[in-house]
Amino acid sequence: MPALDLTQSSVDLTRTICDVPSVSGDETRLADLIHEALRGLPHLEVHRDGDTIVARTGLGRDRRVAIAGHIDTVPVNHNLPTRDIVDDGEPYLWGRGTVDMKAGVAVQLKLAAELTDPRVDLTWMWYDHEEVDAGLNGLSRLAAARPDLFAADFAILGEPSNGAVEGGCNGNLRVLVRTRGVRAHSARAWMGENAIHAAAPILARLSEHRPREVAVDGLVYREGLNAVRIDGGIAGNVIPDLCEVEVNYRFAPSRSVEEAGRYVRDVFAGFDVDVVDQASGARPGLDAPLAQEFLAAVGAEPRPKYGWTDVARFSALGVPAVNYGPGDPSLAHHDQERVPLAQIDEVERGLRAWLSSP
Amino acid sequence: MPALDLTQSSVDLTRTICDVPSVSGDETRLADLIHEALRGLPHLEVHRDGDTIVARTGLGRDRRVAIAGHIDTVPVNHNLPTRDIVDDGEPYLWGRGTVDMKAGVAVQLKLAAELTDPRVDLTWMWYDHEEVDAGLNGLSRLAAARPDLFAADFAILGEPSNGAVEGGCNGNLRVLVRTRGVRAHSARAWMGENAIHAAAPILARLSEHRPREVAVDGLVYREGLNAVRIDGGIAGNVIPDLCEVEVNYRFAPSRSVEEAGRYVRDVFAGFDVDVVDQASGARPGLDAPLAQEFLAAVGAEPRPKYGWTDVARFSALGVPAVNYGPGDPSLAHHDQERVPLAQIDEVERGLRAWLSSP
Repeated sequence: MPALDLTQSSVDLTRTICDVPSVSGDETRLADLIHEALRGLPHLEVHRDGDTIVARTGLGRDRRVAIAGHIDTVPVNHNLPTRDIVDDGEPYLWGRGTVDMKAGVAVQLKLAAELTDPRVDLTWMWYDHEEVDAGLNGLSRLAAARPDLFAADFAILGEPSNGAVEGGCNGNLRVLVRTRGVRAHSARAWMGENAIHAAAPILARLSEHRPREVAVDGLVYREGLNAVRIDGGIAGNVIPDLCEVEVNYRFAPSRSVEEAGRYVRDVFAGFDVDVVDQASGARPGLDAPLAQEFLAAVGAEPRPKYGWTDVARFSALGVPAVNYGPGDPSLAHHDQERVPLAQIDEVERGLRAWLSSP
Repeated sequence: MPALDLTQSSVDLTRTICDVPSVSGDETRLADLIHEALRGLPHLEVHRDGDTIVARTGLGRDRRVAIAGHIDTVPVNHNLPTRDIVDDGEPYLWGRGTVDMKAGVAVQLKLAAELTDPRVDLTWMWYDHEEVDAGLNGLSRLAAARPDLFAADFAILGEPSNGAVEGGCNGNLRVLVRTRGVRAHSARAWMGENAIHAAAPILARLSEHRPREVAVDGLVYREGLNAVRIDGGIAGNVIPDLCEVEVNYRFAPSRSVEEAGRYVRDVFAGFDVDVVDQASGARPGLDAPLAQEFLAAVGAEPRPKYGWTDVARFSALGVPAVNYGPGDPSLAHHDQERVPLAQIDEVERGLRAWLSSP
């Protein structure tokens, strides 16, 4: 693998780093490339923790902005290597990671190398394990080990936002809903109790559920309640005694994780419900002075962020944070994930202009 | 492992061979023990095919009876080694395989060694892979490789029947019922289609289904339609695009496998249904002369066999066959599988008396 060339265009750099697959848990190769490309740059102090890389300027500015992006993706589904495609006359880069979120990472890497004299001090962060259990998240690990590296007045996550500024984020809860039965030979099913059949009302409640839309600080957040896994069965001739449904609840930031947990238990009243993963949402946080300056500089109308992002992690540390990155977030994790080339350039221009201006 | 001692009582022999775990696919150790114990006996001609062992007398009798049993079990579920227990004053041997069907196999092994001068020629058969796909079944493999070994006028399967004679058996069909959707990030569920939610009507139809009871040649067969596995999901934050429900249909022997397939497709109308495994049932077959003699000798009132057993395989080869073995079939595959010691002795006495009488 040749070294990562940060002088190429953000579009080319996106293509290059997408073609280094980095599904969660398998980020080391890409982290090595990023580490190698940055460690020699004189204006940056580079730290590494596992597959998380932090690069900081130390220019003595009175304010500091953190700019972060995760380098992992969800599993590849026959959508790598990337391809250049044209859709309705518009050129796109197609493939896993193009939207979530290597185009954003590519812009950040290029600017980290080139912005040697920014108007604020910068803390660039590229991290692992964002797409899996919150407990594995590289940023979370680093926040515990090196909280000093998170000191900042404002943070920008490069998560896809169609080049707009998306404020706050929904909270995220995952629970297991379980049914239990009694095993028996399937030739004598009446001697057992079928735990999979007992899960029928769980799926019925999910398919009938109508998610809420909730206004928070002027932005409207859309919720979601979805089965993301179902699992049951022992053998082809055994009545199963256990069925597990893993349910993901995305909830507006006006609701705490505790309230979200109560809500889900209420939806599945009568069933065993265990929380396996939870993360608070973040209110929009757009009243911070740097947020106002940033919004004015990129000329964007703020919108709500539906997905949970690590803005919530900065928010919890008292650092106001927004999402700003290329790519349509509704195509994240999609088999047809693809980013318009123009948005990559646009986000690069937006960030460069704001960070360069005196 | 010491050699298998076939002079011990059938009860002790049951305990011994149950404590040699032999979950389907892992029968070699037990097959080796059986092979070793029989190969030196002068009245038997012993064949081996994989983990299936056949031992035949060649006494020139005008009639031949095949007596068969499978040596595999469903997976162990914290129910080995065996334990001696007493329930309501009655002594039992408890543990995986005691009912399905090592007590029957133990009786057969003991009689194979001891009945050196039976009234009919005997073909003893112990085989592997009965508890899994019909395509793996050792008896099926042998029927293709050595059909000559199946020549018989009557067959007895030692499947658990509470020491009664159970005629025929239900047919067995396994199908996959699938739903498909569109993947998306679970934070934007409305961009995808949740294949697990789409499976709600499948589970609803299963849980509402009322199985038939069908009279065939005077015996009443009870059917069953059950999910035995469900599987869906990609990651904790992805709307799943596929859900599979594996359904097992046990059907009365008056219905062909083709009719059974049409019935299941009808139940799941509107969904993708693929047959993955199928086995015809067997009508009771109790009008055969040797069947009549056998019923008279053991003094039993015949009953229907609910579970599919390899009587259907003999039946398909034109050999009338019944089930006769110790153990309550409703406890087969059950976590509390256990056999009354008295039934083991009773079945040994029944078979010994009929096979020894001039």
